[in-house]
Amino acid sequence: MVIVMTADATEADVAAVVDQIESADGQAFVSRGVRRTIIGLVGDVDRFAEMDLDRLKGVSSVRRITAGYKLVSREQHPARTTVQVGGVPIGPHTVTMIAGPCAVETPEQTLAAARMAQAAGATILRGGAFKPRTSPYAFQGLGIHGLRILADTRKITGMPVVTEVVGPRDVEVVANYADMLQVGTRNMQNFPLLQAVGECGKPVLLKRGMNATIEEWLMAAEYIAQRGNLDIVLCERGIRTFETATRNTLDISAVPVAQRLSHLPVIVDPSHSGGRRDLVLPLSRAAIVAGADGLIIDVHPQPEAALCDGPQALVNEDLQTLAHSLRHLTAFMGRMPGEREEWLAG
Amino acid sequence: MVIVMTADATEADVAAVVDQIESADGQAFVSRGVRRTIIGLVGDVDRFAEMDLDRLKGVSSVRRITAGYKLVSREQHPARTTVQVGGVPIGPHTVTMIAGPCAVETPEQTLAAARMAQAAGATILRGGAFKPRTSPYAFQGLGIHGLRILADTRKITGMPVVTEVVGPRDVEVVANYADMLQVGTRNMQNFPLLQAVGECGKPVLLKRGMNATIEEWLMAAEYIAQRGNLDIVLCERGIRTFETATRNTLDISAVPVAQRLSHLPVIVDPSHSGGRRDLVLPLSRAAIVAGADGLIIDVHPQPEAALCDGPQALVNEDLQTLAHSLRHLTAFMGRMPGEREEWLAG
Amino acid sequence: MVIVMTADATEADVAAVVDQIESADGQAFVSRGVRRTIIGLVGDVDRFAEMDLDRLKGVSSVRRITAGYKLVSREQHPARTTVQVGGVPIGPHTVTMIAGPCAVETPEQTLAAARMAQAAGATILRGGAFKPRTSPYAFQGLGIHGLRILADTRKITGMPVVTEVVGPRDVEVVANYADMLQVGTRNMQNFPLLQAVGECGKPVLLKRGMNATIEEWLMAAEYIAQRGNLDIVLCERGIRTFETATRNTLDISAVPVAQRLSHLPVIVDPSHSGGRRDLVLPLSRAAIVAGADGLIIDVHPQPEAALCDGPQALVNEDLQTLAHSLRHLTAFMGRMPGEREEWLAG
Amino acid sequence: MVIVMTADATEADVAAVVDQIESADGQAFVSRGVRRTIIGLVGDVDRFAEMDLDRLKGVSSVRRITAGYKLVSREQHPARTTVQVGGVPIGPHTVTMIAGPCAVETPEQTLAAARMAQAAGATILRGGAFKPRTSPYAFQGLGIHGLRILADTRKITGMPVVTEVVGPRDVEVVANYADMLQVGTRNMQNFPLLQAVGECGKPVLLKRGMNATIEEWLMAAEYIAQRGNLDIVLCERGIRTFETATRNTLDISAVPVAQRLSHLPVIVDPSHSGGRRDLVLPLSRAAIVAGADGLIIDVHPQPEAALCDGPQALVNEDLQTLAHSLRHLTAFMGRMPGEREEWLAG
Repeated sequence: MVIVMTADATEADVAAVVDQIESADGQAFVSRGVRRTIIGLVGDVDRFAEMDLDRLKGVSSVRRITAGYKLVSREQHPARTTVQVGGVPIGPHTVTMIAGPCAVETPEQTLAAARMAQAAGATILRGGAFKPRTSPYAFQGLGIHGLRILADTRKITGMPVVTEVVGPRDVEVVANYADMLQVGTRNMQNFPLLQAVGECGKPVLLKRGMNATIEEWLMAAEYIAQRGNLDIVLCERGIRTFETATRNTLDISAVPVAQRLSHLPVIVDPSHSGGRRDLVLPLSRAAIVAGADGLIIDVHPQPEAALCDGPQALVNEDLQTLAHSLRHLTAFMGRMPGEREEWLAG
Repeated sequence: MVIVMTADATEADVAAVVDQIESADGQAFVSRGVRRTIIGLVGDVDRFAEMDLDRLKGVSSVRRITAGYKLVSREQHPARTTVQVGGVPIGPHTVTMIAGPCAVETPEQTLAAARMAQAAGATILRGGAFKPRTSPYAFQGLGIHGLRILADTRKITGMPVVTEVVGPRDVEVVANYADMLQVGTRNMQNFPLLQAVGECGKPVLLKRGMNATIEEWLMAAEYIAQRGNLDIVLCERGIRTFETATRNTLDISAVPVAQRLSHLPVIVDPSHSGGRRDLVLPLSRAAIVAGADGLIIDVHPQPEAALCDGPQALVNEDLQTLAHSLRHLTAFMGRMPGEREEWLAG
Repeated sequence: MVIVMTADATEADVAAVVDQIESADGQAFVSRGVRRTIIGLVGDVDRFAEMDLDRLKGVSSVRRITAGYKLVSREQHPARTTVQVGGVPIGPHTVTMIAGPCAVETPEQTLAAARMAQAAGATILRGGAFKPRTSPYAFQGLGIHGLRILADTRKITGMPVVTEVVGPRDVEVVANYADMLQVGTRNMQNFPLLQAVGECGKPVLLKRGMNATIEEWLMAAEYIAQRGNLDIVLCERGIRTFETATRNTLDISAVPVAQRLSHLPVIVDPSHSGGRRDLVLPLSRAAIVAGADGLIIDVHPQPEAALCDGPQALVNEDLQTLAHSLRHLTAFMGRMPGEREEWLAG
Repeated sequence: MVIVMTADATEADVAAVVDQIESADGQAFVSRGVRRTIIGLVGDVDRFAEMDLDRLKGVSSVRRITAGYKLVSREQHPARTTVQVGGVPIGPHTVTMIAGPCAVETPEQTLAAARMAQAAGATILRGGAFKPRTSPYAFQGLGIHGLRILADTRKITGMPVVTEVVGPRDVEVVANYADMLQVGTRNMQNFPLLQAVGECGKPVLLKRGMNATIEEWLMAAEYIAQRGNLDIVLCERGIRTFETATRNTLDISAVPVAQRLSHLPVIVDPSHSGGRRDLVLPLSRAAIVAGADGLIIDVHPQPEAALCDGPQALVNEDLQTLAHSLRHLTAFMGRMPGEREEWLAG
């Protein structure tokens, strides 16, 4: 059971609710979001139901939660959501292309990649500054120096920036530089991180855990939403299966399934799904016509020299082919490219 | 190591090869296909190599096999193959739609489903007469009676028929009625069945095992090819993963990966992959733009009354929407619909 | 719904039941087992229930099936079953060791392996004559010649023989030579094969499909049972997961779970699960104390020369260590070794 | 490539190494552990190799890393390690039982569970104060209040305490109360958390990610080790597979495999693996004879009232049966119970 407080509820109102619950031998967990405070109740739910909690001061509504998620569910919010990232929309009316290098290495490499991406229709720049790597001996990213390179590249290109954050400690600094924060596949159930990005005031790109069910993914999004941040974009990036021909198995069905369960936008990462350059084009096409609201793609001016995931990065010619396909298929789906102008006009 | 005999090799030629191998303490496994005889060698390969076996009478070629498959590999046969099913092509120049009821129940239901399918652009009729069912208490199909219904429906509609065969004993009778034999997901490694359909003289639709790697799938195709039948169409139908929101997980990447490794056509079954009617449209679209050479789709005039897999069968309105998408996306891929006319003209 | 006929029911009795069902627009599937005939009903179950079918002549009982299996379920038959294989028991009071070479190669190799196995406490000989192999270019077994070697080895050692059958066509010949027929992991859902071994009059060793749930495994056993053969031993042999350090992942929990759901004995194959010699000892120990009713183990006098699965075969020293562990842990579990003497005395 | 500095290396020594690497266009990542500083190199490894880096002041050794882990590998440290937790050993000579409630709820419940555990032979108390839960609406644990309850229970029972930490921010406070910090399955690749516990000065219990390969698990341990903390115990707790009869699939093979690759102790969690009370006894037995160095088990005085994972918690009678099995099987494995006395004597 969850109690949603009104926007103007006071600390005393919250305390009064908590007292009531504890008087009924229950426990009350208070989540203070940016926009509203939510109180989760654990205990004898039938007894709580008899207490007419919705008559208490400052209480907006009292909800029995049956699913593990509520704020992100489509049942509760039938219209699909558009999330704005530095003025670029990601949502049901557009197909938005995010592209850039897996890892930020140098200003030159980042700018070259951004220019390549932009020429192919990308309107948001991706690039990793903090890299979560399986082995501690692999390149871990440039950290704050990388964030600065991304910010400089944004200034030159005008592209808003999305970059990964790997721990709650870094959320503030990343939010200072980036337009959108990415929570990676290995952190999908890093709950303190989810709560921290829920309070960061910037949109969040939530990658699906490589072993997470769609339901668990939506519950992870709910952790962010609970802190008052509903600017969440879901990203399918492949799940772990027995098949070894591809790095992961793109679960293309997850796009329509998640969109039916949640009002949040869903995009696809064809680069990490397959882990192979030759699969990026077919998987990108497939994603768009399956209804994805966007793509996030690795590009690199010189993949063979990349410090991270070179084998899957697109080079220039690939990007031109991809751009052509995306233009056509976006129109086929009755959508517009995810561009800033489109949004200002709309 | 494999020895391929010439088309006019005699039994004596074969026996001479076998003698040679046994004289070198090896074992020779003779596979007599419809078109040619192949002899597989087990033993000391280096010693065999020194024996100049290709000089023996009736020997066409001697090959060291490094992969577990050879005849179906693209390395060996770079041009992609077109398989003809009752005059309808499945291959790189077309997108062919196969549709029909999961199970043949009555002549009326089968004809109604065939008409629905045909109106939506399907050119091959599918329908199950022998049904492999997980529980012995589930409907097992009408057997030969079902085959007759399919043949009657073909006479009326002109659509060639593909239907499943579940054991080597039934291959002959099924081949008498059907234009193409389907080997189902549970039988992908039923080797006697693979060998039997390899000798049946009709094209084969080989579904991927729900837990088979792409490599194992191609090796299963090789069992068929070894018996002289290269008219094989591969069908991706979803793999088993931890995700429970869908019946199986469509491995969309398997389409381009298998096409790169093998010259055989690859089609997709969006109905069994998802097990949900609402996923058939997005998964069908995704399959086409990922490069699939066709689709195989469950339709039923009254899904709620179906004896098998009703929840995933398309009804009429769905089919119209699907037909529109397929026409458009087939053209986008630079292909033609997989129709008989097109082939006769070509 | 299932109708079980009495042992002395006539064909006319069966036909009368079928008529009744068809008069109610239902379908009746007649399974004639060695010991009894079972009629499976498909249609309007509530209507059938009103028909008092149990009053018809020759009807022993009428059962609503809710699970997909019934004859093998423990709910229906609470006492755990002991299956006799050539006089050797496999069941709840014993731990029975089956061992032998993965593939029968020569009489000498087979006898040497059998002697090794026997010295270590094995009382049933395993050995493959028909080998289902992923690649058609791998060694496929000696066929009938292999069966003869097994029978000769039985004569010398006194050990009953279990060997695999890969197609319904071979069931008769294999049943002529062997004391128990094995259905392998790739054939767990080869329904014609299951039905054929259900009528063969010999006990069956049913390996779990590498991607089969426990429920599906029991439904496969039900196919055998339905044909009148309840002498079935289940064998857990590892499932397919994402982990690549082992060939498959031994699902040790499957032993107690299957024993709770079914009255059939459950044994474990530690050789194929891990695919590594060094894992056979720890996995064998684990199986016994998890409650397994037996083990089936690969041994080979010279593993490095084995034509099949050499890397997992135990050699002599390993077997001595294993024998010591098994003796101790069998006693700890309050069981006896699975020996013929024990059975004759008991 | 990794440079390990001597214990007395100065900051100037470190800076000199970094300068050298950067002069060769490389990047140097400095990890300052409690006991030693390690410098990871990225760039042209062959060029680094020519630079005779091991002659630089303060350099202890220079290593080419081929595996993704080194400090925790057995190749590098053949003797298996014993980790001391508040005086209780976990290692190759003992079998140590950790038990307690999944979640700390009240002082009374915690003490009752601890007494039950202790009576059954447990020598370390587990209990969750910070609970990572899939749904934000599930009970999240008592936090610091729970840590205090655990510390009080330790005072009464003398049992050292292990408890989970879910974010780097909480490491310090948890380390103040607990004797060992647990990193849970969802956080196995939460790299900032791994680094934080690597510097906390207390032993760490590292659960395997439910989708992690054994290799990835060891690389996660390496993150901890790199910060100077080698007091790591690995815990197998089940992996995610297609099987739904059990919550997860206990990968029993992971015990011997991980012990062969790493010198760290490996224990098993039979409670979370199966998620069913009836599986705890067979899985615990299996773990011990597969070579596990200990167990971690959920117990609860009243499972039906538990706020978390009640269905898998053992009650008193179960524990007595388990205790008897463990005593016997520990002796069979030639080990001692993991008790404080044993350690002081040894």
